[in-house]
Amino acid sequence: MLRWTKRLLVGRPLRNERLGQTLLPKRLALPVFCSDPLSSNAYATEEILRALSLGGLALFFLAPWVALAVIVLLAVVVASYRQTCHAYPNGGGAYAVSRANLGRNAALVAASALLVDYVLTVAVSVAAGVDAITSAFLTLRPLSVLLSLGFVALLALLNLRGVKESGTIFAIPTYGFVAVVFAMIGWGVVRIVTGDRPVAESASFGIGEAQHVAGAALLLLALRAFAQGCTALTGVEAVSNGVPHFKKPKSRNAAGTLAIMGGATIAMFAGITMLALVSKVRIADDPSRLVGAPAGYQQRTAIAQVAGAVFGYRSILFLLVQGFTAAILILAANTAFNGFPILASILGSDGYLPRQFARRGDRLVFSNGIIILAVLAGALIWTFHASTSRLIQLYIIGVFVSFTLSQAGMVRHWTGALATGPDRARRRRINRARLINGLGAVFTGVVLVVVLVTKFVHGAYLVVIAMPALFLLMKSIERHYRRVARELAPEPGGMVLPARIHAVVLVSRLHKPTLQALAYARATRPDTLTAVTVASSPAETRALQAEWAERGIPVPLAELDAPYRDITGPVVDYIAGLRRDHPRDLVVVYLPEYVVGHWWETVLHNQSALRLKARLLFQRGVMVTNVPWQLASSRAAV
Amino acid sequence: MLRWTKRLLVGRPLRNERLGQTLLPKRLALPVFCSDPLSSNAYATEEILRALSLGGLALFFLAPWVALAVIVLLAVVVASYRQTCHAYPNGGGAYAVSRANLGRNAALVAASALLVDYVLTVAVSVAAGVDAITSAFLTLRPLSVLLSLGFVALLALLNLRGVKESGTIFAIPTYGFVAVVFAMIGWGVVRIVTGDRPVAESASFGIGEAQHVAGAALLLLALRAFAQGCTALTGVEAVSNGVPHFKKPKSRNAAGTLAIMGGATIAMFAGITMLALVSKVRIADDPSRLVGAPAGYQQRTAIAQVAGAVFGYRSILFLLVQGFTAAILILAANTAFNGFPILASILGSDGYLPRQFARRGDRLVFSNGIIILAVLAGALIWTFHASTSRLIQLYIIGVFVSFTLSQAGMVRHWTGALATGPDRARRRRINRARLINGLGAVFTGVVLVVVLVTKFVHGAYLVVIAMPALFLLMKSIERHYRRVARELAPEPGGMVLPARIHAVVLVSRLHKPTLQALAYARATRPDTLTAVTVASSPAETRALQAEWAERGIPVPLAELDAPYRDITGPVVDYIAGLRRDHPRDLVVVYLPEYVVGHWWETVLHNQSALRLKARLLFQRGVMVTNVPWQLASSRAAV
Repeated sequence: MLRWTKRLLVGRPLRNERLGQTLLPKRLALPVFCSDPLSSNAYATEEILRALSLGGLALFFLAPWVALAVIVLLAVVVASYRQTCHAYPNGGGAYAVSRANLGRNAALVAASALLVDYVLTVAVSVAAGVDAITSAFLTLRPLSVLLSLGFVALLALLNLRGVKESGTIFAIPTYGFVAVVFAMIGWGVVRIVTGDRPVAESASFGIGEAQHVAGAALLLLALRAFAQGCTALTGVEAVSNGVPHFKKPKSRNAAGTLAIMGGATIAMFAGITMLALVSKVRIADDPSRLVGAPAGYQQRTAIAQVAGAVFGYRSILFLLVQGFTAAILILAANTAFNGFPILASILGSDGYLPRQFARRGDRLVFSNGIIILAVLAGALIWTFHASTSRLIQLYIIGVFVSFTLSQAGMVRHWTGALATGPDRARRRRINRARLINGLGAVFTGVVLVVVLVTKFVHGAYLVVIAMPALFLLMKSIERHYRRVARELAPEPGGMVLPARIHAVVLVSRLHKPTLQALAYARATRPDTLTAVTVASSPAETRALQAEWAERGIPVPLAELDAPYRDITGPVVDYIAGLRRDHPRDLVVVYLPEYVVGHWWETVLHNQSALRLKARLLFQRGVMVTNVPWQLASSRAAV
Repeated sequence: MLRWTKRLLVGRPLRNERLGQTLLPKRLALPVFCSDPLSSNAYATEEILRALSLGGLALFFLAPWVALAVIVLLAVVVASYRQTCHAYPNGGGAYAVSRANLGRNAALVAASALLVDYVLTVAVSVAAGVDAITSAFLTLRPLSVLLSLGFVALLALLNLRGVKESGTIFAIPTYGFVAVVFAMIGWGVVRIVTGDRPVAESASFGIGEAQHVAGAALLLLALRAFAQGCTALTGVEAVSNGVPHFKKPKSRNAAGTLAIMGGATIAMFAGITMLALVSKVRIADDPSRLVGAPAGYQQRTAIAQVAGAVFGYRSILFLLVQGFTAAILILAANTAFNGFPILASILGSDGYLPRQFARRGDRLVFSNGIIILAVLAGALIWTFHASTSRLIQLYIIGVFVSFTLSQAGMVRHWTGALATGPDRARRRRINRARLINGLGAVFTGVVLVVVLVTKFVHGAYLVVIAMPALFLLMKSIERHYRRVARELAPEPGGMVLPARIHAVVLVSRLHKPTLQALAYARATRPDTLTAVTVASSPAETRALQAEWAERGIPVPLAELDAPYRDITGPVVDYIAGLRRDHPRDLVVVYLPEYVVGHWWETVLHNQSALRLKARLLFQRGVMVTNVPWQLASSRAAV
């Protein structure tokens, strides 16, 4: 039944040979690897405005400057990652780069950051995608949590089935999103130029209860807006992870794609922010602070308000903007469903996570990683009520930890490359690359500090707790595996065979399974053979003894006392005594069992054999043998 | 950790010898067996008024007549059960009497009714007890569900510990309840006689939105009030169950106790109902229908209103009435915690319920029955929001089913006794007893029909579904056990020994557990010995083969293909092939295992051996042997 449901949802198992790889041309690699960074435009502008709204409308004048800082940072990071593409044609993820250049601990820090970030990518992207949908259909808003969880479940299911990544499917939402956003920006500019300035639905609102900020507080607020805006950078590293999937020349194609993506993101981000400011989109952290809004006013996302102002809410183009925004965000969440299981499988085979993460499931995907990711992201969405603005507080700390480590690792990499004594032209190229990566490391490091300081109390502390906890967990898992491997390593030389074999058959009643177990045990010709029964009531034991004698069973039957009605203790003590008397011998315990056909029938039978076996496993020099007797219904079940 | 918590809550295990019995004198037997019927007075009057309130105040004139009918019925049932005490000195529960006189199916019907009723006794009594508390402290009312669940959990815990039934502890609430209720009735009568008539807090309220009933509808409503009032009879059968616990002469003492209980219940019920009517207690099924009640008026129980009217809400005597009412109701719930596990254990050893119900736990109590009862009663309380009036709709159907069956069984019993040809004097006694039981059977049978008709749509249909379902479940459990027993019964003659033994050692890597398993398998000197590995990756398999050769292990190593990465399938197929080739031989599969010390460490290791074993258990002629290797930490853990 369970298996049938699984087959229906996930599909039939696939053979190993189906595991292959198709290389992607640039035009398909862009949608596959850049949906995550491109989709960030759906919320980055809004987050800047939201942060500034704390200081009231007066502070919106800061928005262009904050956006400019984000754009500069984005350019630096893109330039920096282009170097990584050239240096690591086999894939330069933060874990790999840190591991190669900064050592295991730095790599594990990067891995912790990445794992946390993948979970948040799913949670934030899905929540933002649902926001895009509910901004078009406001009546759906009460269903946000349900819709978000539904999308997470759907993504998990598709990935468990192991959809072949056909670049074409990815291409539609990504290129569609880019196209409609540029159309929106273009048409908006035309309207501004022709004097028909678009006006947002919230343009007339004021923002009430604003704090009056000045001096250090003003700086802090500006920094916080900047930190929020840095969400535009999430996912930039995806291309450098994916270099091996590009057509040749891999590194050049990857670096080129990265440049195109960087340019597009900067243009879209700048355009959306400009239009939001010109059309006077008012966003408040809490909609109740909007002064002049009608009763029951529901705040749409900034990009939805811009699209509405430019195209009008009833135009098909508005719906297209919202639809493609939702689609690319869900796609961005899907990239985490690719990345997380692969990273978990690498960590699993390196011994930092349970080994099960390294096994491919029925459909050749890393099923365990997919399930864990979906559960964690779902839990976050549930906890934070699918609120993008609250989830985003946890985001990007991990991003900037891995950015910083990755760039710092690249600086080390180039320093190492210089030490090999390259020729003059190459030395100049390396120095230039090192400078770029150094700049990237410094910038992202500074931003990391800014993000930590400005977001800590707003939820980021959760990540600050989760990352070291994950780090320590992975360290201790690795220690456990190492200790076990050391203990299990065989010494040179042969094994010592046990001197003699004592067989013990456990008897409760004299039925067919017991007789079968006795026959099998005798067939193995042990040195001694004893049947043992635990006396639960004197009457039963007497009846058993009588039946035993009557059948003339040629095996002695020993009786054990069970004053506490628990059979496990007396049997374990008996076996321990046997071992004490014959320390060089082997004890084989035979457990007659009967196997019922339906799982629910097991409820009707005592499971004491299971408990007994669990205890006996801890005794040295003891083997436990199950002698199953199949009931008619169980034979039919196989 | 788990074990430690259990010890703390439940206590240390007790030895078999501690199972004993103390016989009770009448004055202690009364509180032990009569708390349930006596406590019914806490709600019976109120339920009559509540039913009549549907027709408005105009119908309250019916209350004395309804109460009178209940009293007559009570007298008949008590007289009837006195006969049972004489006839069954070893305990005459409905199950035992039906089984002896009416056959298995009738007994099972009685058992279903009793099981359902025990659950409802707990739910109703605890909910009513909490009502008594919240009627004294109205501010606690929002906590009703929580308090009720807390009491159920407490009772379960005390019963799991197996409190020695010291009659003294039972005596205080029971005699206390009887004393304060009689004091209340007495003082109330004194006040009436002296012209100082007590007036209930709700005396001035009207009842709005009343249906105008007449003719058949009036009769139906009167019958419904009667059916509700019959809750006064619940628990009457307890004494006849408990005859063996009485001091000698057992039957006479039990019958005497029953008479005292009957007299006391009738007097209390009559007194409370009279006072409720005289002091004009107004009870409505829905408090919002009370006209003239202040805003936010909280309805207290009828007995609380009577006590308040007689003694005043600020007197200590009012608090005593409420306190003793709550105490005796909780005690009544406790009687079900005695009865249910014992009945379940009898049904378990008769094969109608899982056998686990028939085993005594650590503390010599039937733990499984106690836990199931608590869970079911808690679920009912949760579902019905601890509302006594809603829970009571489900109650007493079961009571009257078992009453009717038990009395009908008694009629058969006496008819059988007549057939043995007794002397004249004895014949007269038997005829008299048969007449009384016959009257009881007819009365309770008629009431059962009334209850079914009047309460069906108000919730009783749940019980009408649950009882046959339970009946069918018990029948099918019994059928399963009988089938298994038939299949397991050994044929006469000896067992056929298998011709030869094929040992198969499962190898994943070449570590100590594997070498140990190989050594142990060789020590049993099988006819053939093969090591088998499943090829998960070509590289790993090559490495294993090389190591195998290097160590010169004198056992052939077979490789199995696993195209779907699942190791279970190929191994099961291999073993099945072996069995096909040698149908008369025995196959022993050795599974090397290493045992980790902490349960959470098992998460870090693959559990594929477990799954494999589960599959192999379904193959005939196959034994599965675990060869455990204890890691250092696991040895420390034992």
